[in-house]
This record gives sequence, structure tokens and C-alpha cells, in this order.
Amino acid sequence: MRLTLKETAQKLKTADKILVTAHINPDGDALGSTLAMCMALRQLGKTAQIYIDDKLPTNLLFLPHIDEIKRPAEGEKFDADLLLVLDTSPDRIQKVRELTTAPIVNIDHHVTNKNQVDDLYLEPDAAAACEIVYKLCRELNVEITTDIAVCIYTGIATDTGFFKYSSTTPETFKIAANLLECGVKPNFVSEKVETRTFNDVKVMGAALNNFELYFGGKVAGMYIDAEIAKIVDTSEGLIDLIRVIDTADVAFMLRYQEENLIRLSLRSKGVNVSEIAQKLGGGGHIRAAGATLHMSLDDAKKLLLETLSEYF
Amino acid sequence: MRLTLKETAQKLKTADKILVTAHINPDGDALGSTLAMCMALRQLGKTAQIYIDDKLPTNLLFLPHIDEIKRPAEGEKFDADLLLVLDTSPDRIQKVRELTTAPIVNIDHHVTNKNQVDDLYLEPDAAAACEIVYKLCRELNVEITTDIAVCIYTGIATDTGFFKYSSTTPETFKIAANLLECGVKPNFVSEKVETRTFNDVKVMGAALNNFELYFGGKVAGMYIDAEIAKIVDTSEGLIDLIRVIDTADVAFMLRYQEENLIRLSLRSKGVNVSEIAQKLGGGGHIRAAGATLHMSLDDAKKLLLETLSEYF
Repeated sequence: MRLTLKETAQKLKTADKILVTAHINPDGDALGSTLAMCMALRQLGKTAQIYIDDKLPTNLLFLPHIDEIKRPAEGEKFDADLLLVLDTSPDRIQKVRELTTAPIVNIDHHVTNKNQVDDLYLEPDAAAACEIVYKLCRELNVEITTDIAVCIYTGIATDTGFFKYSSTTPETFKIAANLLECGVKPNFVSEKVETRTFNDVKVMGAALNNFELYFGGKVAGMYIDAEIAKIVDTSEGLIDLIRVIDTADVAFMLRYQEENLIRLSLRSKGVNVSEIAQKLGGGGHIRAAGATLHMSLDDAKKLLLETLSEYF
Repeated sequence: MRLTLKETAQKLKTADKILVTAHINPDGDALGSTLAMCMALRQLGKTAQIYIDDKLPTNLLFLPHIDEIKRPAEGEKFDADLLLVLDTSPDRIQKVRELTTAPIVNIDHHVTNKNQVDDLYLEPDAAAACEIVYKLCRELNVEITTDIAVCIYTGIATDTGFFKYSSTTPETFKIAANLLECGVKPNFVSEKVETRTFNDVKVMGAALNNFELYFGGKVAGMYIDAEIAKIVDTSEGLIDLIRVIDTADVAFMLRYQEENLIRLSLRSKGVNVSEIAQKLGGGGHIRAAGATLHMSLDDAKKLLLETLSEYF
């Protein structure tokens, strides 16, 4: 950890035009933290704009102000005096990096953060980047409006699997209590986040007809092939369907994204899957990690099972 | 509400031999509240024993002291000076009622509680009976050991769908924070609660191939027929697979239990399903309710769709 929370707050205070971003393949924590941070900065009188170089998942479009998030165009520039990178090292922001040459402040809770900038605030014990954003709001004396609270709550809820993961601490729950007092309706957030199309529920059924156990049941693997991928809206939560199998220590999902582009998700009850993901060029947490594989689904399956065989 | 919390605590203090029970088809809150209460009473030097007239679900067998729960035998008697009924009116405790003629104290959080006894402590705003048990422990100066905390946490987590339902309040989260400080590992509880057998995951797949939309997509219904029911261990959570469909206000599951015995579960995003359940002889909460139907699966389906047609 290089910056302290106070120093991070100070960096934000002294900037005027702030470009806010997070990782591609954005999830609830990436979107919740950038949106909450952007609203907080505007409350402090700053110019703040979010750019994310990816599509946004349909089930998160309910987040306040999400329609203001921009995707960088080829060669586009943005006049900023600070680039604030949330929930990832700056290597996963793609074209956003080319928008500005402003200095970077990086705020993250991933233990696998690559330490690419000096101005890094890393809190690996935080359940979500949104937990850090909550503390920053307090530090900056920002009023936590219902909109800000909804964004922070969504990030915390999604990154902890609705308070199920080991990253959930007493502080996580205390923050959640306070966010409810700021106006969050937990059922509203959960219903929105978990909303699936009829097709996605059909996909679940299809995925559950395409899963296998390996290594004597210790690993459960699920495949979303090109055929199924065509009708998938969001694949979030699919892996949890097999993560729960009593014999399984590790669950994985390989999802066809496009020709020679496979997304791997890993979940664990004990084994350090962040280590496995790193071997495959990805990263994440001990119990939840992922990687992007540039190969066919079959090759990805072979490579993954080979890598897993070192552990089982 | 007839008893206050203080009066309820007083009733428990003055009793010596306490028979503790909850509803049949016991869930995490029924088991968590009876187990936590029983441990609390023993800590106060009382004789306390839990009886429940049903099988216990496999995924909850991790709860501390659950192996001490007894099922009443035909004609069995139990020497008690108080019968403590948790999480239901006394009409859903079956043969436990015949174990003793001791006076009843009833503690519940269901707004549909049938007010069958004078000594009723009803807190319809509590997210779970376990929330009330937590407050009773505080009131009785019981030390919340890790075992007690795990039971209370499990009841709260399961009855709120892991903090997703509208019943979740700031107080729910504050209690959860405190239970973590008492030693609960949230990932341990969620992993245990959500553990499914390989068969159950296969059942999910089968159930997802046996669901339909009704009333223009506003109702989603799922069927567990005799064939699938044979391999089901627990059907908890199955209904949530279709509850999430974007067009659906109400989700239901009809599950074959035995010849002419069908269990109905209802979930809602707005409609009062407790009212619908009551029309069919059941009860519950506004957004989560259920009933037991003594007829065939086909007849249950017909009757339910007829009842639903009054709303859609």
C-alpha cells in the first residue's frame, strides 16, 4: 500500500477535471464504484466523467447515472488532470488509457493488483472497491445520497455474492446497514441485479445439461459454447449453480466469447484459484478469479484441466 | 402483539423445563431459532429439548447440536412446564403438541400468525424469528457463543434469501455484523446452506426444462413432478431460478411430495402472495408464502392458475 486513505482523498481534492474508469468486462463493483465516485466528485464541485471501454451488462443498467458512462472512440481525447482507475490495475482499462496523459491514481482491493503506478491505494481486505469508495466519501465529507448509496451497495452486494463470500466482514455489514439508512432498498437492488431474461433462464437449463465433474468430483466444470453463447445476455451467477456441489472444491466456467476468445471464471471453497488464474494470464481473489484465453473452447478446456491436475 | 419482549424473556426465566419446537417442513429459521433458543436456555441453567415432527433438510445438518433434535414418537410424552413454539402458530407443529399439556409461549415474525395463544410475541417487522431470538439473548444476558451465533445467522440469512428480500433492515445488517464478531464465518454458512448434491443440480436442470410462463409472462411456474421428486434432496432455492425472470411478478413452484400431497411455494415482486396462499389454506409473507395442497399435481396446477387469474 503506497497511498493512505487520507492521501488518496487529498489527491482527489486537489484535482479539478477527473476521468474515472474501471476494468473492461465491468461488473457491479466496477460500475458501482465509478458511478459513486463520479457523483461524489461532482458534489465536491469537480468535473468528472466516466469512460469504460466495454459494453455494460443489461442487469446493471438500473444504476443511477449509468447512461452517462461513455465508451472511448478511436483517437478520442479527454481533457483531465487526473485519471482515477478503480477496481483494477491500469492494464485492464484498454483504450481509456489513450484518452489522457494525466497522472493516475489507482484504487483497488484486488490482492493481485500489479502495482503499476506509485499513487496506489490498495486495501486487499476490503470486500469491494465500493467499500473503499464508501470510506473515501466519509473522508471527503461527501453526503451519501440515495443514488450514491445504491451504487456502493450494488458493488458490495455483487462482489460478495450477496454477503456470502469470505471477504464479507463485520465492517461490510455495518456499511450495508448505513447504506440502507441512506435509502437503499435491498430487494430493489437484488431484484434488478438478479433479473434475467426468459432466454437466460433457458440458458441456465442448457448449461446445467452441459456440466461435468472431474478429479473424482473435486472439480465441477461448465461450458457455454458458441451455440448457447448466442442467446446469453449475462452469464453472471451461472458458475454458482455448480459451485454448490457438495464434492466440488473448485468450480469453473468456460464461456465462448468470440472466435478464439474464451472467458474463464473460477470459484473455490479452499484452493487458491487466483494462483491458477495467474498461471493462465488472469487474476482475482483466492476464492474467485478469472482469465481471458485466446484459443478455442476445446483447447481452453485441455489447458485448464492440465493446470488443475497440478492441484488435484 | 400481546407479550412484550421483556415479558417474553420473563416467561422464559420463570420456566424450568422447556420444550422448544417450530413448524414442520423446517427451514433455516425454524432450525436456527430453536437451536439458538435451546442453547440460550441451557446457558441459563434450564432443561431444554427440541422436538420437530418432520425430517430435517440435509443442507442444514451442519448446525451445531442439530443431532440432539428429536422427532416425537406415537404416544410419546415429555415432561415440560413450558412449550415454546417458534416461527409459526402452534397449528403447524403436528405431534409435538401431544407431547405435553404445558402452557404455550409463541414467538413469531409471520404477519399471518393465527393468534392461537395469549402468550404471543409477534414482531412482523423482524426479518426472521432468529432476529427475535437475538434480541431475547440480549434481553436475557445470554452470551452469544459462536454456536449460538451460527444458528441465528443461518436463520436470518436463509429467511432473507441472503439479505435480498425487502424484510432486510438496517437492524438485520447490524445484527449480522455483530454475529460475525461473535465468530460466524459467512462463507462457511453460505457454503453449507447452499450445498447441493450432484443429483440436486441435475434436478435444477430438469426443473428448468419444466417451467412455463403464464398471463403474458407475469407469472412463472415450475413443476417438480413425482419423477423428479424422487431424486430431489432439497428443493430450496429452485423457485429463485425463475423468480428472477424480468417479466414475472409472481413465481410459483408446485412440488410433488407424496400421493395427493403437493407443496406450493410462492414468491412475488409486488403482489401480496400471502393472500393467495391463505386462499389455498396456507400463509406466509407478502413476498414469500406457501401452502400444502391435498390433491394431484394436475389439480393443484388448475386450482392455482384459477386463483391467480383473479389477480392477473
